[in-house]
Amino acid sequence: MTSPGSTHDDVANFEALTPLHFLSRSSRVHADRIVVQDGDAAYTYAEWYQRANRLASYLVSKGIGQGDSVGVLARNGEFSLLTHYSVPMVGGLLVQMNVRSNGDDVDYIVEHSSMRLLFVSEDLLSVVRGSSGTRIVVIDERLEAELMKMELTELSPVRDELGPLAINYTSGTTSRPKGVVYHHRGAYLNSLAMALDHGLTADSSYLWTLPMFHCNGWCFPWATVAVGARNICMEKVDPEAVWELCVSGVVTHLCAAPTVLVMLSESDHARQLDRPVRIITAGAAPSPTILGRMEEFGFVVDHVYGLTETYGPFTVNVENLRDEPTGRLVRRARQGDANTLSGQVEVWDMNDSPVPADGETLGEIVMRGNGIMSKYHRDPSATCDAFRRGWFHTGDIGVKHPNGQVEIKDRLKDLIISGGENISTVEIERAIASHPNVLECAVVAKPDSRWGEVPVAFVEIRQGASTSSAELLDHCRERIAPFKVPKQVFFGQLPKGSTGKILKSELRQSLKNFQPNRDSEET
Amino acid sequence: MTSPGSTHDDVANFEALTPLHFLSRSSRVHADRIVVQDGDAAYTYAEWYQRANRLASYLVSKGIGQGDSVGVLARNGEFSLLTHYSVPMVGGLLVQMNVRSNGDDVDYIVEHSSMRLLFVSEDLLSVVRGSSGTRIVVIDERLEAELMKMELTELSPVRDELGPLAINYTSGTTSRPKGVVYHHRGAYLNSLAMALDHGLTADSSYLWTLPMFHCNGWCFPWATVAVGARNICMEKVDPEAVWELCVSGVVTHLCAAPTVLVMLSESDHARQLDRPVRIITAGAAPSPTILGRMEEFGFVVDHVYGLTETYGPFTVNVENLRDEPTGRLVRRARQGDANTLSGQVEVWDMNDSPVPADGETLGEIVMRGNGIMSKYHRDPSATCDAFRRGWFHTGDIGVKHPNGQVEIKDRLKDLIISGGENISTVEIERAIASHPNVLECAVVAKPDSRWGEVPVAFVEIRQGASTSSAELLDHCRERIAPFKVPKQVFFGQLPKGSTGKILKSELRQSLKNFQPNRDSEET
Repeated sequence: MTSPGSTHDDVANFEALTPLHFLSRSSRVHADRIVVQDGDAAYTYAEWYQRANRLASYLVSKGIGQGDSVGVLARNGEFSLLTHYSVPMVGGLLVQMNVRSNGDDVDYIVEHSSMRLLFVSEDLLSVVRGSSGTRIVVIDERLEAELMKMELTELSPVRDELGPLAINYTSGTTSRPKGVVYHHRGAYLNSLAMALDHGLTADSSYLWTLPMFHCNGWCFPWATVAVGARNICMEKVDPEAVWELCVSGVVTHLCAAPTVLVMLSESDHARQLDRPVRIITAGAAPSPTILGRMEEFGFVVDHVYGLTETYGPFTVNVENLRDEPTGRLVRRARQGDANTLSGQVEVWDMNDSPVPADGETLGEIVMRGNGIMSKYHRDPSATCDAFRRGWFHTGDIGVKHPNGQVEIKDRLKDLIISGGENISTVEIERAIASHPNVLECAVVAKPDSRWGEVPVAFVEIRQGASTSSAELLDHCRERIAPFKVPKQVFFGQLPKGSTGKILKSELRQSLKNFQPNRDSEET
Repeated sequence: MTSPGSTHDDVANFEALTPLHFLSRSSRVHADRIVVQDGDAAYTYAEWYQRANRLASYLVSKGIGQGDSVGVLARNGEFSLLTHYSVPMVGGLLVQMNVRSNGDDVDYIVEHSSMRLLFVSEDLLSVVRGSSGTRIVVIDERLEAELMKMELTELSPVRDELGPLAINYTSGTTSRPKGVVYHHRGAYLNSLAMALDHGLTADSSYLWTLPMFHCNGWCFPWATVAVGARNICMEKVDPEAVWELCVSGVVTHLCAAPTVLVMLSESDHARQLDRPVRIITAGAAPSPTILGRMEEFGFVVDHVYGLTETYGPFTVNVENLRDEPTGRLVRRARQGDANTLSGQVEVWDMNDSPVPADGETLGEIVMRGNGIMSKYHRDPSATCDAFRRGWFHTGDIGVKHPNGQVEIKDRLKDLIISGGENISTVEIERAIASHPNVLECAVVAKPDSRWGEVPVAFVEIRQGASTSSAELLDHCRERIAPFKVPKQVFFGQLPKGSTGKILKSELRQSLKNFQPNRDSEET
């Protein structure tokens, strides 16, 4: 009798699914709870709902409406969080931009998204060149003063749950960034999955270590508000401050890439927690070693996996009750199953047929369901290609285990093909990371005249510790097949992106420019 | 690019929302956990998914398919739970029937729902007269043996999330029962609301005190399975067994009408809990008195409110952080706000305009959103009337408080109009229930030549306690306006329906047949 996707103003039993609903509800139900604190500033849900409306009203006054893109280039903070509501409230598309973007990146995204207005924090203003059609607004006291003066506005409700909400640009390490379009229904459902699967409640306090520009903070700007939780902002991950907030019991949840976990575990401020803090980790495959270390401190680590195209997390690793304790951390390092709401995940061979569920046969991880993006913005051919055969092709190489769990073995572009054999860099990295003196490592392919490609390792040693190439290679030989053992080991600091992801493209580049004295081969 | 409501077989980013998804996912993710235990029988999720498929296969073998109604007339048990999956798995509509139905009720529902097959437990077989088009299947060892032999079948996925899933017949105390149609999307969303708002996790154990035939057990057959929780069946509420399961920590959650809470609190087995058990209560407005008593035992009471037309609970009472402790239980007895996913709730006057949010002005409670039924089966005019002006009209009389919470004052049909004044029976009942010697009470209208109607009270006294009409009336005079004080008090046992709801229609009837000696006026 009714059908989603169209207008239903006069229908009692249908409402478009949208995360905007969460704020309007929580502004009443959790009126007096704190929704966000950022330095000295803190707002209750009732206050912040009005503030979101004032920012929406401001956008309307600047001519922003249905289908207009609004950019944000700013570090994590209350204002960025606010735009997750105010921009879609006026029918706009939120474009959160990486704070490490350079002038070219910004120009490309501004042009590609037809950006009408760009909010920039003062410290990032220098990368913005400006363009005739885009209004640049600095996030400063003047804007704040203007907001305070805005009148509250009556806004139209979201009518099409499949209508766009945000565009998230991929990092574009190998090609131009793609604009991943999120719709209201997908963001609503994945926000609920985050709240449900990770136990968010009105008593939770979520710490913003993950950048909000990374897949809209894995939907946590909406998930926290759905349940009436508190957001605690942090501009930059400061291990001392994170430990202080965790130990004191102020924080109950945070999201972090495995490399942030390594940073936390190595901090001088690391200590035992009295009360567990729940960490949701993704962004790269965490090693069993780091999962184990975090658990020893008293963290509960929820291991999830997803891509920009999946609103952040799509899978979750759920522990099996009856498994033996042996090998538990290795199993916890698998990417797991589709989360409660996202859909389905499979591993397919090159002919789009399922690989055997043997935990060994490599294939491409494919997904389908409501947890998949709407489309690539202005790129129907890339959308068609990614969605071929009715499944989203992730470009990640993995295996399927007999219990249905998937496990990533590599990015398609990182996989090493040596003498005709596929070698998973993740497997080699885990072997190296299990050495007690290794902090982090990355394995990449080096072109080789005999084998095509061979694995080489880049290793960062724990502070005050030492090891040698020979020692690490012996360590590897005990754990992996001989042909997978790296041919060379380089020691030094690993280059990382803004979300803490190790930049393998830079490592591959450095191999080309390699000078024997650039890094010491032993330490 | 895609639109819900149609077929999307080949689309990567859209899946119909259906609670069936929960079982297929949990059968893998929570494979080894127990999904249901019923007496000596217990099944893991992996086993039970196959069992659901076998029952689906059985239905197919009997010719049941898309759009066919399948009835169940049985007490709470593993089989009833199973039908919540197997029937919709083949495209059928589940019709759970009240175990107190008489032959006429059964005939009516069988005919009205065009029932193709009816599962009946042996003890209820006598009320089933049979009809030419309906196959009667007794739930016994023979059926069990047949199920064991069924082959696993490949079933088509649900394609239309707005397609029907179940029909729940209203109790029909004043007229013929109405068939309330639930669709997949609504059941999916309300199940998630139950899981999220009431903290269900894979470690939860849910005790079936609420009948599954009551609004499909408020969606708990699906909510529990969504998170991998355990269902513990109980045919009939036995206070001793309930206390045993709560005290021993076996049970973490249960749903119960306020009258069941009264029964539990009065039981000889009542004692202090070491670990809190969460009770979700609805079905009638609970008094602050009973909420307080349950909390004293160590229960966490979630007060919710809904109707058959709202998939069970639609609102939830969330405590406000900054409220004063004074009057807390009175506030907890309000019906609250729409739950996280259901939609919106308002109170409207007779012209369908909102009443002032003053906590005093009476109006009809109206609701809209995804938590509202699809329609009344074969009754478009009743559907149109209930959905007029784009809101579902509940027929419940309530007020809106300044903080947006709604509070029920009466069923429209229970409201007393005395000398032109509206009198809420709930308000009078609360005043009486706050007397320490009162177990339960109900107030109804008695026709009166001078005032039109006057309130009279029916009171059940706590075991071993005593009070008098005069004492209770004095107690009321201290608490409510003089014109609301009952004109008469009758003592005795209160008649109840299968969900524990007090049958006011019977009390009104008994007034007509009233004989001075039927009940003692004092005890």
